[in-house]
Amino acid sequence: MSDHRRDVFVLLFVQVTIFILFGYFVRYDESQKGENTIYFMFQDIHVMVFLGFGFLMAFLKKYGYSSIGFNFFLAAILVQWAILCRGFFHLSNLKIPISVESLVEADIAVASVLISMGVLLGQTTLLQLIIMGIIEIAVYQCNFYVGDEILKLYLKIADAGASIFVHTFGAYFGLAASFALSRFKRKNDIESDKSLESSNYTSDLFAMIGTIFLWIYWPSFNSAELSGDDQHRAIINTYLSLAASCATAFAFSAILTPDTKFDMVHVQNSTLAGGVAIGASVNMMIQPYGAIFLGMLAGALSVIGYNYITPWIDRNLHIHDTCGVHNLHGMPGVLAALVSAILAAIATESQYHTGLYDIFPARAPTIPSFNQDVYRHIQGDGRTAMQQAGYQILALIMTVVVAIVTGFLTGISNKTLCFHYSFL
Amino acid sequence: MSDHRRDVFVLLFVQVTIFILFGYFVRYDESQKGENTIYFMFQDIHVMVFLGFGFLMAFLKKYGYSSIGFNFFLAAILVQWAILCRGFFHLSNLKIPISVESLVEADIAVASVLISMGVLLGQTTLLQLIIMGIIEIAVYQCNFYVGDEILKLYLKIADAGASIFVHTFGAYFGLAASFALSRFKRKNDIESDKSLESSNYTSDLFAMIGTIFLWIYWPSFNSAELSGDDQHRAIINTYLSLAASCATAFAFSAILTPDTKFDMVHVQNSTLAGGVAIGASVNMMIQPYGAIFLGMLAGALSVIGYNYITPWIDRNLHIHDTCGVHNLHGMPGVLAALVSAILAAIATESQYHTGLYDIFPARAPTIPSFNQDVYRHIQGDGRTAMQQAGYQILALIMTVVVAIVTGFLTGISNKTLCFHYSFL
Amino acid sequence: MSDHRRDVFVLLFVQVTIFILFGYFVRYDESQKGENTIYFMFQDIHVMVFLGFGFLMAFLKKYGYSSIGFNFFLAAILVQWAILCRGFFHLSNLKIPISVESLVEADIAVASVLISMGVLLGQTTLLQLIIMGIIEIAVYQCNFYVGDEILKLYLKIADAGASIFVHTFGAYFGLAASFALSRFKRKNDIESDKSLESSNYTSDLFAMIGTIFLWIYWPSFNSAELSGDDQHRAIINTYLSLAASCATAFAFSAILTPDTKFDMVHVQNSTLAGGVAIGASVNMMIQPYGAIFLGMLAGALSVIGYNYITPWIDRNLHIHDTCGVHNLHGMPGVLAALVSAILAAIATESQYHTGLYDIFPARAPTIPSFNQDVYRHIQGDGRTAMQQAGYQILALIMTVVVAIVTGFLTGISNKTLCFHYSFL
Repeated sequence: MSDHRRDVFVLLFVQVTIFILFGYFVRYDESQKGENTIYFMFQDIHVMVFLGFGFLMAFLKKYGYSSIGFNFFLAAILVQWAILCRGFFHLSNLKIPISVESLVEADIAVASVLISMGVLLGQTTLLQLIIMGIIEIAVYQCNFYVGDEILKLYLKIADAGASIFVHTFGAYFGLAASFALSRFKRKNDIESDKSLESSNYTSDLFAMIGTIFLWIYWPSFNSAELSGDDQHRAIINTYLSLAASCATAFAFSAILTPDTKFDMVHVQNSTLAGGVAIGASVNMMIQPYGAIFLGMLAGALSVIGYNYITPWIDRNLHIHDTCGVHNLHGMPGVLAALVSAILAAIATESQYHTGLYDIFPARAPTIPSFNQDVYRHIQGDGRTAMQQAGYQILALIMTVVVAIVTGFLTGISNKTLCFHYSFL
Repeated sequence: MSDHRRDVFVLLFVQVTIFILFGYFVRYDESQKGENTIYFMFQDIHVMVFLGFGFLMAFLKKYGYSSIGFNFFLAAILVQWAILCRGFFHLSNLKIPISVESLVEADIAVASVLISMGVLLGQTTLLQLIIMGIIEIAVYQCNFYVGDEILKLYLKIADAGASIFVHTFGAYFGLAASFALSRFKRKNDIESDKSLESSNYTSDLFAMIGTIFLWIYWPSFNSAELSGDDQHRAIINTYLSLAASCATAFAFSAILTPDTKFDMVHVQNSTLAGGVAIGASVNMMIQPYGAIFLGMLAGALSVIGYNYITPWIDRNLHIHDTCGVHNLHGMPGVLAALVSAILAAIATESQYHTGLYDIFPARAPTIPSFNQDVYRHIQGDGRTAMQQAGYQILALIMTVVVAIVTGFLTGISNKTLCFHYSFL
Repeated sequence: MSDHRRDVFVLLFVQVTIFILFGYFVRYDESQKGENTIYFMFQDIHVMVFLGFGFLMAFLKKYGYSSIGFNFFLAAILVQWAILCRGFFHLSNLKIPISVESLVEADIAVASVLISMGVLLGQTTLLQLIIMGIIEIAVYQCNFYVGDEILKLYLKIADAGASIFVHTFGAYFGLAASFALSRFKRKNDIESDKSLESSNYTSDLFAMIGTIFLWIYWPSFNSAELSGDDQHRAIINTYLSLAASCATAFAFSAILTPDTKFDMVHVQNSTLAGGVAIGASVNMMIQPYGAIFLGMLAGALSVIGYNYITPWIDRNLHIHDTCGVHNLHGMPGVLAALVSAILAAIATESQYHTGLYDIFPARAPTIPSFNQDVYRHIQGDGRTAMQQAGYQILALIMTVVVAIVTGFLTGISNKTLCFHYSFL
């Protein structure tokens, strides 16, 4: 069997396997009534995942078709896989109940793969990306849900905007995979890859479509699974953080780009860093000025990353990061986790009223008590503020370690695979 | 009067006539209170109709302006006409009450014309398209509402996503019109038309904007007029069917395209076939795996259509289908109707609970009975499951026949009309 | 300090100042619970402001980066400033409460600056635009809120779609600033500026993305802050007015463009004029045919403006209007105000039922009376219909005068400022 036929066989095999697994396991969640708020939030996230990420990566003039097409194909196949993976941890009578919320979580899970794809664009074949995505989704769900159910750890950390579990995870997984792949390439192959990485006027404008839709709908990404006060705060915080990171990214781009120009890569990416940086503390009492400060920090950090850190990593660690994912998702994701730890450390009940236990459920007392404000019993682990902060940091460290180890192994195991299809 | 002046006169005459008819007939529907869910669904459909269809057809590098501009103009003038046409069948005190729901239905009706336009793009002038659209909307409304009110047939068949009444109707109407128009063209005119039908890198990326927005918002198209459980199922089924058709279309494109490339036409169109194929059974208990299977079938069928069936039709029937509408709307629409008949044939009350009579109102008993679950009296025609299945097939046949006959006559009557305005 | 360093310093200074002011003044509005309807309306407006305006201006092939990039940067920095400016007129315990509604109002305020930017694109530097924007937002808020709170004038006029306060204001502010700037330019500088103002096939298609998203989401812009019946009417009126202005703009473009072509500038801009023209009377009983008539008028007026009035203004008044803002926002805005005055003059209680006092609160009787339909006391100024019409005209005149005077002064004060950064 030729490589050509084998590759097509793998593509079809994956889709048919998903179909069979759906046949065995997935059923409508009869308990869910059509709830519209989550559906409209979902649509915003859907635009981000299928349009935003794809067009954002289209800035490379040689990879316009590939970035948009691969993004489309990968996301379409992996949302199905993500529904299965998540479902396996939430079986009910050996069946996976599916609802609009499942679609939201599938889209968010797939975002982590698309982030990793940003590192690897142009360095891998489509088949490699698909196999990587299948592994990454499974690991992502394990990291998120095994940690939650078994270690009683993760659900009880705050990361409403998925900055730790999606952005940080996806970035370091991709970077580790890129590191692994580069071990097996000859030097001049890498050089020729890089020579394809230039943009032109038109490709940069297409990328701006992605950037601006991501920017616009990010508040929905960070607040879709929240409700009430929490959701309200998350929307405002994300909006302000994004506005500040956009303005600051422009200013820093002006400082660091010679000849009184702006660098389109900064405009396309660093303007979004505030959305990542606010993600883990998006529903906390960071206050509007706190959201703006964090956005400014993230915007500046991201531009500095593009100018100094990415070239340094490329030169010294031989990790090639095609779209500069480390500057948009990696460092701002780590920043998000650190900020969430600081805010967790200073969170008091008087500041949040009863909302404190919504954001940090583990801080509720171990003895179940009836709370008059929310008219239900609440029970937690009786964590102190400092303990909660420690757990936030622990989640960050675990996520980065899991991402790097599994990303590296995925890259290694992927190295011999090859897929010939492309749009080029 | 020169042709030039006559054409402009027709354009203005149509708009002024619509204005006068609105003056006589259309009034706000005072009974409707602003209901927001339908408005947000409407906005998604609005994006599909005005942006999605227009950009999808922009893949032809010579027809970028025409596809987007004509789509915009046609849709703007015809939504007004569609409100009138629908209203004439629902007069209340000789007035047409207008509400947000009227806007939704107008947008959906216009979609059928834009589908037909996809067949004819590059073969007709703008004036021909407008006259065709005016006739097509009227026929569409007759097919839909006369059939419903007089034959007591249509409202009682299930087609929530309008796969039969919009997609199938629009495709076969356009194909019949194209057949009629080609009777009156000289062979070398047709050849020169076709030589304009090539895409380039940029036009293909613009088309992807259309594709992806259609793909993203399709669940709203298929579920806008449903509610509760039905709507919930429709969203999930459409999402899964689209994901599966996207993945399968890529795989089949890889199989059928030489040189280990994907064909952008497949990526732009066949990825959407799942949305059409699920449309007539979108709220039925097809189960998640059923939706995926149907999406896979539609994706494969559509790619095969582009590769084998469209060239065959062109060569043997002399029907030129510029955008391959038969593969995205025609065959998947017929598939949708067949699947809905099969599901109707096996639908039981125990499976759907009381929801059965929401989906198939004609299956309710002829004697009105008070239903405790929905707290209202229900009454139907006492159809059996097999009878309902028969009606689904009958609706398909009637729609195809009406579309072909009226499309052909429209094409014939249009042949002498000519309009000089273009963007080229 | 070189110009280069000074300019960057100003950029950062503005963002840091905003941060400090947020620190002192802005806090979450605890009384606001997450209300979702306004959030989804907000998202539509967000698309218009950040994507729509930016891409609409991208039709100039030399200013693609600048129009999208500057639009993004300006809007991001000015939404923060607009929250502050609006808040200073609504301090509560010396703090500015922030909610999703604040974000809506910030986006709408910023739209006025982006309209002015349309006049000045290519004639100014980014720093000039930012300084202009900071002044314009402050003046806009003064015009809107000082008028409201102190003169008891403005809130009591009807302008739900902000045609007077945003569109007319932004257009005449920009035109006056352009007039002022042109005083200080040498003739051949202006000529060379203009030579950059041409479009090409690709840039025109990018602009259509902006046009179509503006067109699609305009009903949300005109109805976001309304509710119930009012909102319902506003959606329908805007939809119909836009459809009619689109169709009429195409027809008039065909009349006035030689060689049986359409002019893309008309297609991109005049198709939207109906959205502006309906803005001030959007929730009034203008009836569907009235909305269509107004849209037709606006579409025709706008095309005529592009063909005859803009060149005349350029030649005789030496005001250069790069994007033809006068034809899309200026004249249709004035038309909107005049129509709102006419409708106010003929509004009767029997026509609107209790809704009359929602639209024209000043027309309610001066003695508070309990209204059974809305279950609350209503109290107004006892204005007659003709008085209300007079106030509508007065608001228009005040807005135009304030816009021209402050726009001219801003242009004068801006003339020596210079900023070197660009994308060119």
